[in-house]
Amino acid sequence: MFTTISGKDIETMAKLYRLNLINSITGYKSANLIGTQNKEGKTNLAVFSSVTHLGSNPPVVGMVLRPTTVPRHTFDNIMNTGFYSINHIKADFVAKAHQTSAKYGLEASEFTTCGFNTYYSDNLPVPYVRESLVKIGVQFKEKHQIKVNGTLLIVGEIIELIIPENAIAIDGFVNLAALRSVAINGLDMYGRVSPIDRLSYARVDEPVKSILKKD
Amino acid sequence: MFTTISGKDIETMAKLYRLNLINSITGYKSANLIGTQNKEGKTNLAVFSSVTHLGSNPPVVGMVLRPTTVPRHTFDNIMNTGFYSINHIKADFVAKAHQTSAKYGLEASEFTTCGFNTYYSDNLPVPYVRESLVKIGVQFKEKHQIKVNGTLLIVGEIIELIIPENAIAIDGFVNLAALRSVAINGLDMYGRVSPIDRLSYARVDEPVKSILKKD
Repeated sequence: MFTTISGKDIETMAKLYRLNLINSITGYKSANLIGTQNKEGKTNLAVFSSVTHLGSNPPVVGMVLRPTTVPRHTFDNIMNTGFYSINHIKADFVAKAHQTSAKYGLEASEFTTCGFNTYYSDNLPVPYVRESLVKIGVQFKEKHQIKVNGTLLIVGEIIELIIPENAIAIDGFVNLAALRSVAINGLDMYGRVSPIDRLSYARVDEPVKSILKKD
Repeated sequence: MFTTISGKDIETMAKLYRLNLINSITGYKSANLIGTQNKEGKTNLAVFSSVTHLGSNPPVVGMVLRPTTVPRHTFDNIMNTGFYSINHIKADFVAKAHQTSAKYGLEASEFTTCGFNTYYSDNLPVPYVRESLVKIGVQFKEKHQIKVNGTLLIVGEIIELIIPENAIAIDGFVNLAALRSVAINGLDMYGRVSPIDRLSYARVDEPVKSILKKD
């Protein structure tokens, strides 16, 4: 049995119910920790489920900040230094990663309070998460304000990628399941992914076929 | 052993290698079919991995279009009618869904060529995918052009949601694993997700704990 929910129904829902529902129904989300620091070197770490691929050449990535619900340290730091790191959340530390969403004040760094270690490369003036197997160094490029709700889309260019050598297949593909990277469902469900299939480039005149390498 | 890849390295990669690598490393993506039609009622269906939650009140969703690589039928139809549908891809039909990315001409509808059925509700002037368990009706609101690569962010408001009645938990959460919705890794890997944990709202003074309901 299907139920039909109208825009009006959504508008009149209890706040938490609406948050859970609307955050769940658009599908799975990426699971990353965003590392930043301010001009004084104070570090910050926050879980984000909105990191999105925007383009490969140049390598561009988007991320959404909700000014009204998220503490602004991440945004302030990016505006101040111009850089941030994107660090994959592994299945092994989802609880610690989720804990970074608590409203810690400016005096505390989530690296310390949530039990992560910083890792600095020569090419990025802000910290990576040492425990993450996929570390992406990003330079801020532009921001766009979504008119309908004031949300900000932050756009950055990838300037560095630190990843296990053997994680990259011969054609450049990275199987995230092998790295134990997780996906997020809604506000608070973390899940591991098992590949169903990898499919060939789709053409009009032939059905797609599996290109999954069986180990 | 970790490898460090610089922005310069990425710039000089072979195109397909770079596409696979950069599309993979930002994390898991949502897996949806976008349903549209033109003013003459000709339907179109296309797989998208860039649908992203932008806000719950009002319920707002984003989607990225790459003008240079994606046939523009979806974009043209949204601009013409002002509406589109977002339909979850189920594990059962990933190959058919992937096939919609072939470059079919305007004369063919991917609903027909790829084996999907339309479903029309009274509240949306464009088709849903009958086979999808989660159907989201969206009204176009605004678009933003990413300067660095010309990509478009399409922003829409959810005006209807059609979903199995028993899929919504008492707090509004929808467990996508129970609906067999899939996640996308890179350009062409489809995966099923199994929940690791659902975690409580994070607070400064207490560690997060599991709120996963065991069946």
